[in-house]
Amino acid sequence: MSVQTKATIASFGGKLLRLSHNASSTNCEMAFNLYLPPQTTTNPLHKVPLLIYLAGLTCTGDNGAEKGFFQHAASEKGIAVLYPDTSPRGLKIEGEDESFDFGSGAGFYVDATKSPWNKGYKMYSYITSELPKTVFENFKQVDSERVSIFGHSMGGHGALTLFLKNPGKYKSVSAFAPIANPSNCQWGQKAFGGYFGEEEKAKWAENDATELVKKWSGEPLDILIDVVCPSLPRLLHHERRKVFRLIKMVEQGTSDNFYKQGQLLPENFVKAAEGKGKVNVRLQDGYDHSYFTMATFADDHVGHAARYLLA
Amino acid sequence: MSVQTKATIASFGGKLLRLSHNASSTNCEMAFNLYLPPQTTTNPLHKVPLLIYLAGLTCTGDNGAEKGFFQHAASEKGIAVLYPDTSPRGLKIEGEDESFDFGSGAGFYVDATKSPWNKGYKMYSYITSELPKTVFENFKQVDSERVSIFGHSMGGHGALTLFLKNPGKYKSVSAFAPIANPSNCQWGQKAFGGYFGEEEKAKWAENDATELVKKWSGEPLDILIDVVCPSLPRLLHHERRKVFRLIKMVEQGTSDNFYKQGQLLPENFVKAAEGKGKVNVRLQDGYDHSYFTMATFADDHVGHAARYLLA
Repeated sequence: MSVQTKATIASFGGKLLRLSHNASSTNCEMAFNLYLPPQTTTNPLHKVPLLIYLAGLTCTGDNGAEKGFFQHAASEKGIAVLYPDTSPRGLKIEGEDESFDFGSGAGFYVDATKSPWNKGYKMYSYITSELPKTVFENFKQVDSERVSIFGHSMGGHGALTLFLKNPGKYKSVSAFAPIANPSNCQWGQKAFGGYFGEEEKAKWAENDATELVKKWSGEPLDILIDVVCPSLPRLLHHERRKVFRLIKMVEQGTSDNFYKQGQLLPENFVKAAEGKGKVNVRLQDGYDHSYFTMATFADDHVGHAARYLLA
Repeated sequence: MSVQTKATIASFGGKLLRLSHNASSTNCEMAFNLYLPPQTTTNPLHKVPLLIYLAGLTCTGDNGAEKGFFQHAASEKGIAVLYPDTSPRGLKIEGEDESFDFGSGAGFYVDATKSPWNKGYKMYSYITSELPKTVFENFKQVDSERVSIFGHSMGGHGALTLFLKNPGKYKSVSAFAPIANPSNCQWGQKAFGGYFGEEEKAKWAENDATELVKKWSGEPLDILIDVVCPSLPRLLHHERRKVFRLIKMVEQGTSDNFYKQGQLLPENFVKAAEGKGKVNVRLQDGYDHSYFTMATFADDHVGHAARYLLA
């Protein structure tokens, strides 16, 4: 459970720590970043809540820390931010570095059951258990009782599933352009087929946000999702509240490339969540799948978490 | 003067344009980024002022746009931001790609006079004349009468020299961790020796911010400079206003690596600027030479420019 500090970088009045540890769930050394807001240094007895950011395909724990600008609002609100990696690294499994959407950088936040991936592709256990335990043991100023989660694309799906599989564990969840129904898109089918096996549809369902939300019986949901739609016509600005109608219009031919490819399927998630509470899907006209989008709406997502973490 | 648009990316309500053009001063195709704030689309007749960001060694026009967080305040204030490259590219001059601190990525915002660099290393002409002319011709919503400049490290020096060499051309100037007296540091001596010649000390002085500020006879200066000092003791927090005393203490053994190497020399600039107006040197305790520092103080620097651009 010991942690190595590779660098301490000042950021928005707090400290961004570049850390690593030997993780048993993923069977390798894992790098991660932890942002401690200024409130942790001005008052050593003050405990701050934790917001976990799950990154997308090809990313590491660095992308969000460098380009997401989540520290801007986290500093103001007094929230620590944890930036984990997206997969184990260097396990020497044949083919682990062959694709951008499977293996290294593409752990999908699941526990693989199929050989050889089950030897370390246990990102679900790593993110829900080993990593936060390590953080709470080593950084007493971080409050283990107040944790929220959010993410982007593959990480948006990770955030939704970890929240839905663990009622009460996370105070809130939000997502940028999440893969929302992996069982029905190419990326998800490749990942779930590889990590679980083609025939293991029960496993697929247990790890698919759209299937999970159908079965949700916890507190009424309050989920914030930003869907990006570069070519959405301007007139839709006036109709943001009509979520279903908008989703339908998005479906009919606008949106980002990955949306167009049918990789994201937010409309499936929204439909499956009917009657389970609030799913605030905002269509961000003109925005794309990049970190420029996250930076723009960073304050909103940290603010969404803050309403629960600081309640 | 025609400009190619490679991408249009939404950012903080405005548009970040990835552009390129064939530049005659640098004798090659030059990429650059231009951020147009939301005010330019909501009212097509509204002209916005321009803030030019000059990046440091090894950078391109992308670093500031992706990691500087300048669009955050520029969007709110209604300011366009121009992110040029740091040198010509691909001129096939022998040795141009050999060092990080000379040639490609290290144009130092000067007009080289020594062969073979004088065949395209004309970044002074490019930044002060050709590039802004191209921007104003192609983007009528950008106001050629209201332009400010700022930069980081080599680009901080670029901003200071371009401001000081052209009284009235720029409404304001600020800098992050600038190389402040290149004639007296290794980076500057290598660059000026290479671009002007070892013996051309008059040329060196004409392009050194510390020499230029001694001769300043324009309006009283109001320059904002953030100096970074990772190991500055905490007690100095209470003494920020005593600039000279602080500079002296920094000199005695704290600061970022490049400061320690004697590459930055802000104290020389501050001393040379005595009696010329206000040089607000802020010592940023614990901060380093990275874009995390720029992101943290981005709002302050855009705000400094805004006070002049929107006056």
